[in-house]
Amino acid sequence: MHKPLLAAALPLLAALAPTLAAAAPASEPKPLAPLEIVGQAPVADWSAIAPADLLVMDLAPDAAGKPRRVVIQLLPAPFSQGWIGNIRTLAAARWWDGTSINRVQDNYVVQWGDADGEDAAKAKALPQGLLVVPQDQYTAKAAPEGWANAQRDAYAAGTGVVLGWPVSYAPGGVAPVHCYGTVGVGRNMPPDTGTGAELYAVIGHAPRQLDRNIAVVGRVIEGIEHLSSLPRGTGDLGFYKTAAERTPIRAIRLGTDVPDLPRYQYLSTESASFARYADARANRRDPFYIRPAGGADICNIPVPVRRVP
Amino acid sequence: MHKPLLAAALPLLAALAPTLAAAAPASEPKPLAPLEIVGQAPVADWSAIAPADLLVMDLAPDAAGKPRRVVIQLLPAPFSQGWIGNIRTLAAARWWDGTSINRVQDNYVVQWGDADGEDAAKAKALPQGLLVVPQDQYTAKAAPEGWANAQRDAYAAGTGVVLGWPVSYAPGGVAPVHCYGTVGVGRNMPPDTGTGAELYAVIGHAPRQLDRNIAVVGRVIEGIEHLSSLPRGTGDLGFYKTAAERTPIRAIRLGTDVPDLPRYQYLSTESASFARYADARANRRDPFYIRPAGGADICNIPVPVRRVP
Repeated sequence: MHKPLLAAALPLLAALAPTLAAAAPASEPKPLAPLEIVGQAPVADWSAIAPADLLVMDLAPDAAGKPRRVVIQLLPAPFSQGWIGNIRTLAAARWWDGTSINRVQDNYVVQWGDADGEDAAKAKALPQGLLVVPQDQYTAKAAPEGWANAQRDAYAAGTGVVLGWPVSYAPGGVAPVHCYGTVGVGRNMPPDTGTGAELYAVIGHAPRQLDRNIAVVGRVIEGIEHLSSLPRGTGDLGFYKTAAERTPIRAIRLGTDVPDLPRYQYLSTESASFARYADARANRRDPFYIRPAGGADICNIPVPVRRVP
Repeated sequence: MHKPLLAAALPLLAALAPTLAAAAPASEPKPLAPLEIVGQAPVADWSAIAPADLLVMDLAPDAAGKPRRVVIQLLPAPFSQGWIGNIRTLAAARWWDGTSINRVQDNYVVQWGDADGEDAAKAKALPQGLLVVPQDQYTAKAAPEGWANAQRDAYAAGTGVVLGWPVSYAPGGVAPVHCYGTVGVGRNMPPDTGTGAELYAVIGHAPRQLDRNIAVVGRVIEGIEHLSSLPRGTGDLGFYKTAAERTPIRAIRLGTDVPDLPRYQYLSTESASFARYADARANRRDPFYIRPAGGADICNIPVPVRRVP
């Protein structure tokens, strides 16, 4: 009676198993659910993610001794900006090793870096060669058009998914948007835009008010649950009050420096499969749904990512 | 350098302290942040939430022995429908006591009820008097107009916040929408709409595709972190594979049956303070922001709720 048939929300790896399809008799043809469309996408519709574009964060093991690895895809060109170079420099210098997750604010962000970063006397020295990136790099001046649901967005003139990334279109240029799992650069007041040493990941409803106000540098493609399920902060804005509450970061490395790293790929947002998937997210026709919405916000059409089968 | 000034996302109780205001010199006048507007709202702009409209869920204490209480506000008229009556019947019968949280799917929902509900031989007997509620009760035929950001929503002709609740407007009627913290009724395939014995709470980006397809019955107003930080499910769709992984539910009671319950109130969505707050959420003018978005989706304008000071 209470069979909980809430359709899966995110095409994360574990969810890619066609559980909804399995629930229906194979003999009965029916409209495909978004994840079924993804599951049937031909190999040619999947694009490889270069290990050089991955940032791998290993947290201290959990209470049961299980490893906790978070894999982040760095923002590609033309959206990637100077912060990405800083992040590569910080990872190469192993600067984050021994730092910690210092903030977990419910329905907002998990933030990590040097817990003493605000204390000039105790702050960890940054590596040489970090750039100060100007605000105008929050947007890319030119970007190709992609799948779009323009005119239905509360924050921008239009939105789309281009080169594997959700973006918004505005007179100021094209900008990556803040969705669940988005990784960005913590910063102080303008004009300081942050170096990239202090990073955050979104663990709640899309905080789109941050778009064009802070640097987006990537997204979590695996292991977000190791961040989203952390105990919430005990102080203001979700910062932990004591050092003991922080989660230690063992290491953060570029994918090219992690020998055992699986290969990942994303469903090409320029493919026919993605167009069908995005349409199905906006117009749910699978059996659970009575009234398809006829639309979906850009953060409710997450780009499918998987390990290479 | 890395002072993490990401503005607070949700006006939950802990966040109501005017931390942002404290960060600026008192001598320097500046536009108010949304939470500052809420903090300055006159007493007359706050509306009481009747204890009879609260559902109090006490989970087993956490690993450190700390109590875990989740307070849910039930959906008010004219949006409340037959499921609310069923939920009152289930709580009065103490039916949920000894049941468990059975599903935690990252960026989607936490779900609770009878883990054996699908097994006719082992399912817990339901109390007498539960109604079978028709699908047409997913929407309310008539509702007053409220603060609205119509025409900027991806899912409906318009949205608004009316009588303390975020809703969407469509030819079919006015319907409460799914936002972070929304509580709804798990159901089987249509026309079964669920009794209310199986409930879920949203712990991720708003799954608006569920609007008008499943019954919204309330929202978590305190303690959502006890749900959102639970370990993610180990099986398909976030269900736990083993009974040991489930979180026991000690008791679920109506607020009138909980002697030590604080009084709660919400910022009246018909007040001038709410209009200013909603405008500030859509047009961030506080010092952190460089480019106000000029809009906000309905789930990014959460209704402020607090304990009565």
